[in-house]
Amino acid sequence: MPASALSRRERFALTVRGEETDRPPVWIMRQAGRYMPQYMALRERYSFRELCLDPEASAAAALLPPELLGVDILIIFNDILIPLEEMGLRVEFPGGGPEIMDPPRDEAALGRFRAVAFEDPPVAASIRLLRERTADEYPVLGFAGSPFTLLGYAVEGKMSRNAHEVRRLMLEQPELAHEMLRRLTDTVVSYLVAQAGAGGAAGVQIFESLGHILPAWEYGEFATVYTREVVRRFRAACPDTPVIVYSRGAAACLETMESTGADVLGVDWQLPLAEARRRTTRPLQGNLDPMVMLAPDAVEDAFGRMLEGFDWRRGWIANLGHGITPQASVESARRFVQCVRKLTGE
Amino acid sequence: MPASALSRRERFALTVRGEETDRPPVWIMRQAGRYMPQYMALRERYSFRELCLDPEASAAAALLPPELLGVDILIIFNDILIPLEEMGLRVEFPGGGPEIMDPPRDEAALGRFRAVAFEDPPVAASIRLLRERTADEYPVLGFAGSPFTLLGYAVEGKMSRNAHEVRRLMLEQPELAHEMLRRLTDTVVSYLVAQAGAGGAAGVQIFESLGHILPAWEYGEFATVYTREVVRRFRAACPDTPVIVYSRGAAACLETMESTGADVLGVDWQLPLAEARRRTTRPLQGNLDPMVMLAPDAVEDAFGRMLEGFDWRRGWIANLGHGITPQASVESARRFVQCVRKLTGE
Repeated sequence: MPASALSRRERFALTVRGEETDRPPVWIMRQAGRYMPQYMALRERYSFRELCLDPEASAAAALLPPELLGVDILIIFNDILIPLEEMGLRVEFPGGGPEIMDPPRDEAALGRFRAVAFEDPPVAASIRLLRERTADEYPVLGFAGSPFTLLGYAVEGKMSRNAHEVRRLMLEQPELAHEMLRRLTDTVVSYLVAQAGAGGAAGVQIFESLGHILPAWEYGEFATVYTREVVRRFRAACPDTPVIVYSRGAAACLETMESTGADVLGVDWQLPLAEARRRTTRPLQGNLDPMVMLAPDAVEDAFGRMLEGFDWRRGWIANLGHGITPQASVESARRFVQCVRKLTGE
Repeated sequence: MPASALSRRERFALTVRGEETDRPPVWIMRQAGRYMPQYMALRERYSFRELCLDPEASAAAALLPPELLGVDILIIFNDILIPLEEMGLRVEFPGGGPEIMDPPRDEAALGRFRAVAFEDPPVAASIRLLRERTADEYPVLGFAGSPFTLLGYAVEGKMSRNAHEVRRLMLEQPELAHEMLRRLTDTVVSYLVAQAGAGGAAGVQIFESLGHILPAWEYGEFATVYTREVVRRFRAACPDTPVIVYSRGAAACLETMESTGADVLGVDWQLPLAEARRRTTRPLQGNLDPMVMLAPDAVEDAFGRMLEGFDWRRGWIANLGHGITPQASVESARRFVQCVRKLTGE
């Protein structure tokens, strides 16, 4: 592999500004996860909570993908529900996904749903350790769930396909939903600022992972308005740290996502990148179908299809269109990274 | 309620041609279902399979919504997986949704995945009985799953959120997937022609219910191409019977849906109707958020939001953006129908 003219940090910084680079930076949402035998080995030594909260354990997980896949961007190992614990909810992590044991669904529950101001949370220490371990070779991303996404998980308790409970709350007690969203907004801003400020993250990603369950007008009023506020306040505190907003259902709401002021828009697998580019001037992130990670031999073709009619030379962070699933193979992930490298003959 | 100038059948016929009517026709996807106490009472007397296959039982279920809600369109009571049984699979209906006991996932399974030619299946007899019982006052819709949707259910066995098994089959054995889709296409054409021909259905709906799980290019190659073939061959056999194609994920693929040649495009709750109208000249169906059915007092406001900037006077069949769920209330469904009536002061 020939030496590249740009460092990984420079490549990331140019890309998020929409400028041309030697090649697109590449990472994978949920890149350290259950699909990796090496991650499962770590899980033998540490509980999921330790992987989120113990800087040593967290850094060990976050360092697997660059070593095994050759990605260009590190993302801290954490779970979007961790801040909900700090707000007062009881979160448990039994094997197959987190669960809120006491989902807040009425006014009385606001007592265990307090806005939290973070100064130097464990995740910031994890980011510092990660930067130290890699001598700042990689841009390290921090992240948080969007206020609406966190509301969904909090109220639902255990995520169901239709998310009935949060929708019922929004319909029957909209003022309560908005109060919870305001508290989540304060919490998320503080959490992201700590990751960028105290932690020194090179960028942050906000996961609007439940955007697709809402009609467009509700997406605007219950999701976008708060994500926009997060971006605005985060930027005031950390003006030089770029923000990526990822949304499920981007095809129906790309323009609304753009109105959040995000530097980069992360889109899911359904919307063609070429069409996304026609609809926004913002740099994009995504969007290989995560299911392609089931079949290594299908990666190259699907990668080519994804890029049809799309100028990948500027303003594109290569990624999947959603988190990689436990059924994926490490070999597929590796081939995806190689496809990005091969774009410029590396 | 003042007498209307148009019969329900005339109103439907004008609407699907995009012509102006006195008011939009209204129905609800899965309008006879578990949310209705009266349906649950029927389920005490009949098994789910009997409701699908016994004309008396099926008609009794299908007649609940006009009586209880005042909808304008009847849809036969059936399940999209019934034709898979005829093709050779073992389908069971334990309480919470159907399950394929022997999902076909390799060449060898093609023996139990044979194209079926229907002449006068039970569903056609049910449609005749339904028309007879209502003296042809209502347009009666027949329906079928799209070839891709049926492939998804068949291969998955039990539908999961990510539909890994069908995606794996498509990626690893695309030729097998296409052969199965061809057999499904033959079966679906024949099933729909029987419903319109022998049964006398006034229209048919094709459910592309898994469209949202595919990237746009795969939607074209694995879903649309077969749905287009179904529409083409159905139209050749039944030139006067309109076809509605409903798709999840319509925001990303409305133009592709249009290319099927469907008379009416059914869109999910995410895409604003006004935007859909800008993108296609075809009559539309949909798309109230089904979650609104959880909260009767929220129906009127949500209904108004749905129609913002949308000319509902022509080419619109009022409906939800997806099937009504068991958690819905009959009162909400009733109010939705009333909202449509009130549009023209009825």
